[in-house]
Amino acid sequence: MVRRNEIREGEVAVAMPPAEDAGLVFIGRIRTPWTDRLACPRQGRLDGPVCRIEFDEPWAGGLAGLSGYDKVEVLYWLDQSRRDILLQSPKSDGTTRGVFSLRSPVRPNPIGTSVAALVGIEGSTVLVRGLDCLDGTPLIDLKPDRCSFTPLAPAQPGDFETGP
Amino acid sequence: MVRRNEIREGEVAVAMPPAEDAGLVFIGRIRTPWTDRLACPRQGRLDGPVCRIEFDEPWAGGLAGLSGYDKVEVLYWLDQSRRDILLQSPKSDGTTRGVFSLRSPVRPNPIGTSVAALVGIEGSTVLVRGLDCLDGTPLIDLKPDRCSFTPLAPAQPGDFETGP
Repeated sequence: MVRRNEIREGEVAVAMPPAEDAGLVFIGRIRTPWTDRLACPRQGRLDGPVCRIEFDEPWAGGLAGLSGYDKVEVLYWLDQSRRDILLQSPKSDGTTRGVFSLRSPVRPNPIGTSVAALVGIEGSTVLVRGLDCLDGTPLIDLKPDRCSFTPLAPAQPGDFETGP
Repeated sequence: MVRRNEIREGEVAVAMPPAEDAGLVFIGRIRTPWTDRLACPRQGRLDGPVCRIEFDEPWAGGLAGLSGYDKVEVLYWLDQSRRDILLQSPKSDGTTRGVFSLRSPVRPNPIGTSVAALVGIEGSTVLVRGLDCLDGTPLIDLKPDRCSFTPLAPAQPGDFETGP
């Protein structure tokens, strides 16, 4: 959330194709202290302020079993971001890097991902620390962090495959 | 990738609303050794086989600057997954948990996320270890892993905010 919508010196935009390959459903909203992109943290911190992840119906029913985890992965839609800037200049100094070498919110599919500390669950709202997004950001998904989660499903052959 | 499309004992499906809140553009394809959902790893492993992430044009131009990172976060679209099962039974034993307490591929927005080891870049193809998806899975995004990445953009006020 480190820019408004300007193109900076040296940056390269592409013709954005229609974004119609798959469709998302927003399952809730995220409430944070930040109402301006120029005030948001560049990355969340686990000792940051508590943020509220509010699930809409019927999705709140999918929270059963979550309370045992200490960290969750949160996916959200960065709805104020441009999607077409392939080479970006984070320092606004004319030097550029490719979008896939950055964690910029400006990307062809502007999905933010954070690993957040689970503080509590109040009905259909999940309280966490560690987010970095604007107040009102649409929620796409929430799942236990991969480091905390052990699969419950039976093992599969690929589980045991290594190199080359 | 641990199920086909059946509903199991005890599971609860909801009426899936139209997924029209935002649209994705597929930016490439992922090539892996796994062609059947019942053979995929449940989670990727960093010593797993090398997989190929093939970027389409014009997106391959966004890879500039990526080669310095050791780990990347990869987002992909689990295009064979149902999206409507709110309570799931991973062990197929009738006990259920909410979708948001699982890393199941079956979710309202079936986006897979992995942290993978960057092995190399060959033109428009990124080679990694640590994926768990089917061969041919559509690519949504790739970015440096948050643990490896230091923001380049100037600091913002939210960077320094802590609790409550």
